[in-house]
Amino acid sequence: MRIAKPDPLSKPAGAAPSKGATQLLGRRPGRNDTRETILNAAERTFSACGFTGTSHRQLAEEAAVNQSLIFHYFGSKEGLYRSVFLRRGQQLVHDRLALLTNLEKRDGEPPTVKDLVRAYLTPAFDLKRQGQGGIHFLNLQARLHTEPTELTEDLRAALYDEPMQRYVAALQHAMPEIDARTLYWRMVFSIGAYLYTIADLHRMRVLSGEARGGGHDLDETLAQLIVFITGGLTATPQDGR
Amino acid sequence: MRIAKPDPLSKPAGAAPSKGATQLLGRRPGRNDTRETILNAAERTFSACGFTGTSHRQLAEEAAVNQSLIFHYFGSKEGLYRSVFLRRGQQLVHDRLALLTNLEKRDGEPPTVKDLVRAYLTPAFDLKRQGQGGIHFLNLQARLHTEPTELTEDLRAALYDEPMQRYVAALQHAMPEIDARTLYWRMVFSIGAYLYTIADLHRMRVLSGEARGGGHDLDETLAQLIVFITGGLTATPQDGR
Repeated sequence: MRIAKPDPLSKPAGAAPSKGATQLLGRRPGRNDTRETILNAAERTFSACGFTGTSHRQLAEEAAVNQSLIFHYFGSKEGLYRSVFLRRGQQLVHDRLALLTNLEKRDGEPPTVKDLVRAYLTPAFDLKRQGQGGIHFLNLQARLHTEPTELTEDLRAALYDEPMQRYVAALQHAMPEIDARTLYWRMVFSIGAYLYTIADLHRMRVLSGEARGGGHDLDETLAQLIVFITGGLTATPQDGR
Repeated sequence: MRIAKPDPLSKPAGAAPSKGATQLLGRRPGRNDTRETILNAAERTFSACGFTGTSHRQLAEEAAVNQSLIFHYFGSKEGLYRSVFLRRGQQLVHDRLALLTNLEKRDGEPPTVKDLVRAYLTPAFDLKRQGQGGIHFLNLQARLHTEPTELTEDLRAALYDEPMQRYVAALQHAMPEIDARTLYWRMVFSIGAYLYTIADLHRMRVLSGEARGGGHDLDETLAQLIVFITGGLTATPQDGR
């Protein structure tokens, strides 16, 4: 069994995690099975019960390990939460930024608003497709506003500020007539729309699918979201039918 | 001290709560102080810790009452949760439907999409303006996807299906070219956008307000949301800049 050391953060190929993320995690995600088992169990438990609602004992029971092992690997419940947050969060952010870079390098036209929306959303839907772990992570993101601010604020800033700024800059380029503050608002609305939807597809089935004899899948959800969010981002106050 | 009886639900003036809501609540919200104290404490606790993460003991401690009083008034933790959910939820739904009825009775033009969006959102912002209680209720709504489905599904259906159907019908009238299924999707996205934003205004301040020297208030949030959601609801797949 290889024991993870508090080394600088290992990173996905091509990723350049921000310094903030590195400082916050402080341990290397490795192929260590016990460590991964604890992370998976904690991801599931934190997403269901929240940080405050999850006890050390519960974390140990869910992972079927001794509580001391959790302290050994993660130092504290906070440390474990941070590691859970950053493990998939860094992948998400890396993919978001890589897709944006590809769009910006593309010959010819600069990215349209719809291109940018698709690039922003696709990595989150890929996480959802990864199965339960990805879904638990997305649920964790969808409930961040219920977590203690002092726990999540640095994590969110370390992970999400850079992609937010780069996407807003690209949107600004595509829509120079809309001020940056409005674009920040609209990005927040967009994130709310996608996180709520992706975390709560059951409700959509209740509302529309079953009544109309149709199921729905992630591809339809993504396609519908892209149209909706693009419409919202490009809206002018005069519109309204 | 007047003890609430398991009578049919009392209702706000002019409200016509669905039969489902009546059956689910089963008790009359009264002016009973102890009962209201328990409801307020439970609203705060459930919104912070979730249904599963909240114990009977915690509920009693937060309300500073004996656990047996909670059973006396609400029968069970489930019963208490339902009462918390329906207390402000019925007001919200009542106001939403009343505003829609007013729009539909208006002489002249039928309601525009923007009219409908404003009517849908305004009662939620009014709740937010009511202070901590309203905010806790909205946070509870924003975390429904983290609660046990068997607990929330009936409640959501009893409360929210009727306004959803009536708003979708009105939107359909304003936009006959968009199919009903797409309108349901877009309403779900809209609800996600507003609940996430309203529950998490702190994040918006971090992202934009402080960096740009501006605060923000609920009026600005509502105005920005109305434009965004109207743009999203009226979007056509060909748009994309």
